Amino acid sequence: MTLILALDFGGTKLAAGIAHLGSREWLRYERRLSPANVDAKTDLEIMRSLIYSLLQGITPSVIGVSFGGPVDATTGTVRLSHHVAGWENIPLKELLEAEFGIPASVDNDANVAALGEYRFGAGQGCHSLFYITVSTGVGGGWILNGKPWRGTSGMAGEIGHMVVDPNGPVCLCGKRGCVERLASGPYMAQNVREILENVDVQAASRRVPQRHRQASVLRGFPPLKQLARHRGGEVLRGLVGDNLQLLTGQLVSQAAADGDDLAKEVLYQAAWALGVGIGNVANLMNPQRFILGGGVTKAGEIFWQGLRKVARETALPEVTFEIVPAALGDEAPLWGAVALAESLLTMK
Amino acid sequence: MTLILALDFGGTKLAAGIAHLGSREWLRYERRLSPANVDAKTDLEIMRSLIYSLLQGITPSVIGVSFGGPVDATTGTVRLSHHVAGWENIPLKELLEAEFGIPASVDNDANVAALGEYRFGAGQGCHSLFYITVSTGVGGGWILNGKPWRGTSGMAGEIGHMVVDPNGPVCLCGKRGCVERLASGPYMAQNVREILENVDVQAASRRVPQRHRQASVLRGFPPLKQLARHRGGEVLRGLVGDNLQLLTGQLVSQAAADGDDLAKEVLYQAAWALGVGIGNVANLMNPQRFILGGGVTKAGEIFWQGLRKVARETALPEVTFEIVPAALGDEAPLWGAVALAESLLTMK
Repeated sequence: MTLILALDFGGTKLAAGIAHLGSREWLRYERRLSPANVDAKTDLEIMRSLIYSLLQGITPSVIGVSFGGPVDATTGTVRLSHHVAGWENIPLKELLEAEFGIPASVDNDANVAALGEYRFGAGQGCHSLFYITVSTGVGGGWILNGKPWRGTSGMAGEIGHMVVDPNGPVCLCGKRGCVERLASGPYMAQNVREILENVDVQAASRRVPQRHRQASVLRGFPPLKQLARHRGGEVLRGLVGDNLQLLTGQLVSQAAADGDDLAKEVLYQAAWALGVGIGNVANLMNPQRFILGGGVTKAGEIFWQGLRKVARETALPEVTFEIVPAALGDEAPLWGAVALAESLLTMK
Repeated sequence: MTLILALDFGGTKLAAGIAHLGSREWLRYERRLSPANVDAKTDLEIMRSLIYSLLQGITPSVIGVSFGGPVDATTGTVRLSHHVAGWENIPLKELLEAEFGIPASVDNDANVAALGEYRFGAGQGCHSLFYITVSTGVGGGWILNGKPWRGTSGMAGEIGHMVVDPNGPVCLCGKRGCVERLASGPYMAQNVREILENVDVQAASRRVPQRHRQASVLRGFPPLKQLARHRGGEVLRGLVGDNLQLLTGQLVSQAAADGDDLAKEVLYQAAWALGVGIGNVANLMNPQRFILGGGVTKAGEIFWQGLRKVARETALPEVTFEIVPAALGDEAPLWGAVALAESLLTMK
């Protein structure tokens, strides 16, 4: 029986699973949260202990790895992690192959999750898809002609840093109005916080372009500037006991669902940014399906309705596509790692 | 000896050529301008007469066709032409195969030109590239893993309708701030004309986002609003003898090269839009090379310098790419049609 070892270096958590080839259930599975201020060395040590705890008495044939950061998938070398220090140029595939004496394949989490959804989730039977994760960051992974498309230097899929509003707020990357700057959970929380603190209120009121605000699901809604003075925010303040530092993207979604007008507007802004991004991608690549995962996509109907509407308006009428939620949830990278390892078996 | 018949239905001109397999020179070649107000039937009649004039005494083995409009490449059926009436759902591949008794392959001009540049031009040896034509419209064609990527319904490549400024001027497609709305020749001419006519001056002054204007090659340049009142436009007016209806994209480029400040600003705006578009595409697909053809790309250094700078600023630092001019010029579609026909031979 062929066994597959799947690993997920997730930035804040580490997970490992073993499954029989062709099975859709874990034979063994373990996960652990990374300690605070972890570095690459500690991450690797924790993962080694997870692996040895799983391996007792059994021998897998191949290893598939999802890594939360840019990876050179041809060599299996990690470029860096945006969350954990010390991962620069670590030859992860080489290390694993040397230690366990079996072939390994390593790729970044968005590409691997795309593969997971394609093989086992919401992308089954669909030969061109773009998987987007909307969470603490916004990233994406391609399946074209049934195979991952990684780009010439392994960097494809970075929809998070597509500019959709060149007059928007400044992103960590230095540009203005990136999709991630408007749609990621932490930035949604920051946008709400700034308005409630009355910081940069005027800038915030410019963020949703006029045409889209008018055409939005929140038709007739006043601009953020007025909102900050007169309406909304009460539910948000209630959720964090007036300590605005506790605001998260999830709480913004929750407040929006509970009818908080300010939260609804900021959530719609996230949906707008992602919708323009998806419409642009549809025009450019014409994939059959978009699959959306990550915490922000659990935000409910305001988010999904706005997103679908704006994406449809942005794409040309002849450009057809579907937008569906991811099916595998947090396990997409680990099941993707299984699929990645499987491809090593077929290559042999 | 295997002969290839290549056809180019270009919207305003028709061209046909015959070449030996593997040759880079036409054995026979003819082209004709389409008459004004032409329809599909006349276009087809003219093309038939071109073909029969070429074919005297020789028999080609395959036909490759470039068509100036959306095509279903799997069936070889034209969806429509944006320039010529009556092309809706014409089964062009079927018609040609029935008449000449040999296999034919039909695709839209941007895809075919991309293939032409890949096989014979600026894309040789480069297995992932995006070809962009910037002319009366802005369109694109993909080569990924050495093969055309057409998208799930043949619509991939539409960078012209990527939104880069949601507060920009309204495009024919109904959206605001599409790449085509800012960078195509006719729209560049329109933008200049509106400013010179003092129509919509305030809107025009908003078009180049502030950050990019500040960071532009035209550092310290006053906004368009002031320009329209105080500076620039004299060279432009001179070129058309004050008849602003005669303005074209080419004249804007010429006036910019001659130092006209208004023309320089509008040309830079085109370069900016295309640069943001290319940077966004680089982040999303990470192709090795961008190849730019079409009249607007002959606009000179202001255009190329601005374009490269903005594309580089828009892409993430880890995302590498080259931007190069097309090598085949107006013959890219016809040589691409040769490459398209060749692929029919290898499939046999």
